[in-house]
Amino acid sequence: MTDPFVVVGGDAAGLSAASKLKRDDPDREVIVFEKGRWVSYAHCGTPYFVKGDIEHLSDLLALSPEEIEERGIDLRREHEVVAVSPDERTVTVRTADGDAVEQAYGDLLVATGAHAATSPIEGAALDGVFTLHGLDSAAAIRAFLDAPDAASVEAVGGGEYVDRETVARYGAMDPPETVALVGGGYVGIEMAEAFAAHDLDVHLFQRSAHVLQPFGEAVAERVEEHLREQGVTLHLDTEVDRLAGDDGRVTGVSFGDGPLDVDMVLVGIGIRPNTDLLAGTGVELGDSGAIATDEYGRTNVEGVYAAGDVAEDRHVVTGGPAWVPLGLTANRAGRAIGGTVAGDPTPVGDVAGTAVLKAFDLECGRTGVVDHEEAREAGFDPVSETITAGSRSGYYPGAAETTVTLTADRDSGKLLGGTIVGSDRAAIRIDTVATALAGELTVSEVERLDLAYAPPFSPVWDPVLTAAKVLGGKL
Amino acid sequence: MTDPFVVVGGDAAGLSAASKLKRDDPDREVIVFEKGRWVSYAHCGTPYFVKGDIEHLSDLLALSPEEIEERGIDLRREHEVVAVSPDERTVTVRTADGDAVEQAYGDLLVATGAHAATSPIEGAALDGVFTLHGLDSAAAIRAFLDAPDAASVEAVGGGEYVDRETVARYGAMDPPETVALVGGGYVGIEMAEAFAAHDLDVHLFQRSAHVLQPFGEAVAERVEEHLREQGVTLHLDTEVDRLAGDDGRVTGVSFGDGPLDVDMVLVGIGIRPNTDLLAGTGVELGDSGAIATDEYGRTNVEGVYAAGDVAEDRHVVTGGPAWVPLGLTANRAGRAIGGTVAGDPTPVGDVAGTAVLKAFDLECGRTGVVDHEEAREAGFDPVSETITAGSRSGYYPGAAETTVTLTADRDSGKLLGGTIVGSDRAAIRIDTVATALAGELTVSEVERLDLAYAPPFSPVWDPVLTAAKVLGGKL
Repeated sequence: MTDPFVVVGGDAAGLSAASKLKRDDPDREVIVFEKGRWVSYAHCGTPYFVKGDIEHLSDLLALSPEEIEERGIDLRREHEVVAVSPDERTVTVRTADGDAVEQAYGDLLVATGAHAATSPIEGAALDGVFTLHGLDSAAAIRAFLDAPDAASVEAVGGGEYVDRETVARYGAMDPPETVALVGGGYVGIEMAEAFAAHDLDVHLFQRSAHVLQPFGEAVAERVEEHLREQGVTLHLDTEVDRLAGDDGRVTGVSFGDGPLDVDMVLVGIGIRPNTDLLAGTGVELGDSGAIATDEYGRTNVEGVYAAGDVAEDRHVVTGGPAWVPLGLTANRAGRAIGGTVAGDPTPVGDVAGTAVLKAFDLECGRTGVVDHEEAREAGFDPVSETITAGSRSGYYPGAAETTVTLTADRDSGKLLGGTIVGSDRAAIRIDTVATALAGELTVSEVERLDLAYAPPFSPVWDPVLTAAKVLGGKL
Repeated sequence: MTDPFVVVGGDAAGLSAASKLKRDDPDREVIVFEKGRWVSYAHCGTPYFVKGDIEHLSDLLALSPEEIEERGIDLRREHEVVAVSPDERTVTVRTADGDAVEQAYGDLLVATGAHAATSPIEGAALDGVFTLHGLDSAAAIRAFLDAPDAASVEAVGGGEYVDRETVARYGAMDPPETVALVGGGYVGIEMAEAFAAHDLDVHLFQRSAHVLQPFGEAVAERVEEHLREQGVTLHLDTEVDRLAGDDGRVTGVSFGDGPLDVDMVLVGIGIRPNTDLLAGTGVELGDSGAIATDEYGRTNVEGVYAAGDVAEDRHVVTGGPAWVPLGLTANRAGRAIGGTVAGDPTPVGDVAGTAVLKAFDLECGRTGVVDHEEAREAGFDPVSETITAGSRSGYYPGAAETTVTLTADRDSGKLLGGTIVGSDRAAIRIDTVATALAGELTVSEVERLDLAYAPPFSPVWDPVLTAAKVLGGKL
C-alpha cells in the first residue's frame, strides 16, 4: 500500500490539496499536520473582523475541523512537523504533549505559510505591539480596541481555538487612543480603515516616498490623498527605528523627526516564508527565499511539493519564478497538487500578481509587471501611460473618476501589467487586464476588446480601453 | 486634390470616423450628412432619461454641433443622403428645403444606423404607441409621463433640436396609468424599470418562453423573478397581434388570452439596419440584412465603408459575420475606419457580442456564443454549466448570489461564451469572459486565471473561476 499523502500546514493550500486528493482518490490516506489550533481560516478577512464589519472570529473559518474530518482527511492540530527526511520519506512530528513521532509519506506537501516580519524594528516584543498574521493576533487587537466591559473571549467569538489568555489580558487594558501603523502595504492600509472605524488617531509610517509600492505611483497618490481626507496622518519617507516602551508596554515611536507618543503599534512590513523546516533537506529555495517549484508545484526533491505562501510560482509575464503569497494562488496550487498526487497531473497555473485592496472608499487593483525596473530585468523595454476616465457614462449618476495605468513592452507591443484605482467598481476591472496577460494580448488587441458597455456600469470606452488607446498611441 | 471623406449619419460610428480622420489628416475635407437634427447622442441613456435619473435630454449629447465643427468637420444636419453612385463616386443629398444636390466623395462611410421595428404588430401608428429609438421618442414619452402642468418642451431640455410639436402634444395629455411593453429584450426590460419609477402599472409581453433571449435561460429566470418582485406583470409565451384604438389613440392590447386595457404601449421587438439607401448600388448585405464588411470595415465596393448599427462585423468566436448593433462596436469601428482612410490601415476589431443590462437591482451580462444551436451551426460541440456563487467572501457584508453560465466546445475545450447575473458588481465581471474569448483561452486556462481576490470585492474563487472549474470537470 502507498504511504499517506502528508500535508504540513492546515490552511488554504494544504487543505485544498488534501480535499482534492480525497475527492479524486478516496482510498488514499491523507494526514494534515497543523502546528496551531486554527485551520482553514480566511486571513484576508481579519482587518474587517478588527474593524467590526465581521462580528465573530469563527465567521472567518472556511471549514471546521469536523467538516475537514468528514472529508476523510486525518487532521492533526497542535502537531508541528519539525524535520523532513526525504531519503527515508518520513517527517518528524512533535505533538501537543511534546512527544516526537515519525510519520512515513508517499507524497509530501509543504504548505507551512509565512510569518509577519518585525525585524529590524526594535521593541516589537512590547505589549501593545502587534502584527496581523493569524486569528489570534486579530482577536487580541479587537479585545484591546473594545472597552474593557465589552471585551471578552466570548465577544470575539473564537470558541475553543482562540488564545484565551492573550485575549483576556488585552481585553482588560484601557483601549488605545493613538496607533502607529508601521508600513504602508496591504496590512497598513486595510488596518488604517479598521482603526479609524474605532475612532483612533491613526498615524501611518512608510519608509519610501509612497504607500502601496506594488501598485505604482498613480494608485499611491490617490490613496494617500484619500487617507488624509479620512483623517489618517501620513509619515512618508520616514523610517521607524525603534518602538519605545515603559514597564513592558509600548509608549512611542522613534523616527527621524522625533518621537510620537502612541499606545498601540501595528507592524506590517511584510511577510517571510516559513522554510526553516527544510534546512538541510536539499529542497531548493528560490531567490525570493521561498521554495522553488515547477509547473506542477514539485520541488527539486522527489515526492516533495510546496504550495501557498511558502512557495514560488511561475510568473505569467516574465516566465520566471515569482513569490506572490496571496489567497487564490494558495488555493489554486493546493487543488492542483491534490489532483496531481491523485494521478491527474495538473499545472498549478501561472501567477500574474493580481491583487486588489479596499482603502476606505477607494478600490485599488494591480496585476502583472508594473515597475519599470522589474520589467527591464525581465528583458522588456517598458512604457506606461496613466489615464483618468469615468466609471460610467458621464451623464449617469454615480460615475466616479477611475485612474488606470497600463504598461507594455515597446518592441513587441505586449501588455505587461496594469493598475487601477477609483471608488466605483474599480477593483474588479483589473480582471480584464489579468485575463489579457494570460492571453498574451498586445496593447492594440486590448484596445479592440469587446468589453461591456451600459450607462449604469461603464462608459462606451471602459477605462481600461481608454488607457490602451492612449498607450497604443505611444508605441 | 482628393475628394472629401463623406460620412452618412452623424452619430457614434460616423462622428468617430470623422473625428479620427481630422485628427490624423487635418487637411482632408470631411463632410457628415445627418438627415435629422440630433447628432452624437447617447441612445443607451434614453431609458434613464425617461426614468428621470437624467434630467435633460441634452445631457445625452456627447458632442454639440459646435464642438463637431470645431474639430474641422463639415457637419450638415437635416441633409438626407438619398442615393449613392459608386461608379461616379457621388452621393445625392436632399437638403432641408427639398433641393437635391450631388456631392463627390473620395471615401464614403455608410453609418446610417438602424430603426426600431414595429411590424407585424397592427396599430403601431396610434397615439400613445412608441418605440424607443432616438431622442425625439424619448422626449415624447417623458412629456407624456409627466403631469400636464409639469410637462413642457423646456422641462425635457432638448433645446432647438427636439420635436417641439410632438412633445407639446403629449405633454398636454393626461399621463398614462397602464403601459404594455411589447418585447422582453433590452428596451423592454430597461423601460419596465423606467415606467415603474413613474408608478405605472407595467405589463411586459414576450412572445417566447423567456425574456432576454440572448442572455440564456439562467439569466432570464432570475430577471423574470426579479421583475415580478418589482410589480411587473409578465405575459410570457404571449404574442401581441394587435393594438386596439379609439379616436386615434391606443386603448388596449390584443393577445391570445384576451384584451388588456392600456393607455400606453412601447414596442421593443428589435431593430433593423437602415440599408434602403444602398439598393441597386451593388453594396452587398450579409445574411443578417446588415452590410457585409471586411476586417477594415470595407464593403465589397471600392471606397465604400460601413460601420455601426447598419454593418456586420466578424465574430471573435465563430470567425463568421455577426450583426451586433451596440455602442462600443459603432464607436470603435468608426474610429478605426477614420484611421484607415487617413492612411493607417486599422482593423475594426472583432465583436464578441458583449452586452450588459440593468434590470432594476439586477445586473446582467453576456458575451460570445451562448446558444447551443448557434454554437453547433458554427461547427462546435457545445457544453454549458451554470453555477451560483457569492460576489464577495461569504463572511463579508453585501455578498450577493451571482449566477454564471459558461459554454465551451467539448472537443477543443475552447471557451465559447458566457452569461452572468447578480446584484453586486455582476455585470462588469463579464469582461473577464470577453477578454478570455479574445485570447482564445480554453476552459482550463480560464480556471487558472489569476483574478482579483479581496473579501469586499470577490470570494477567493471569483464566480467566473468557479464556473470554469465546474465546466472543466465536465469536459
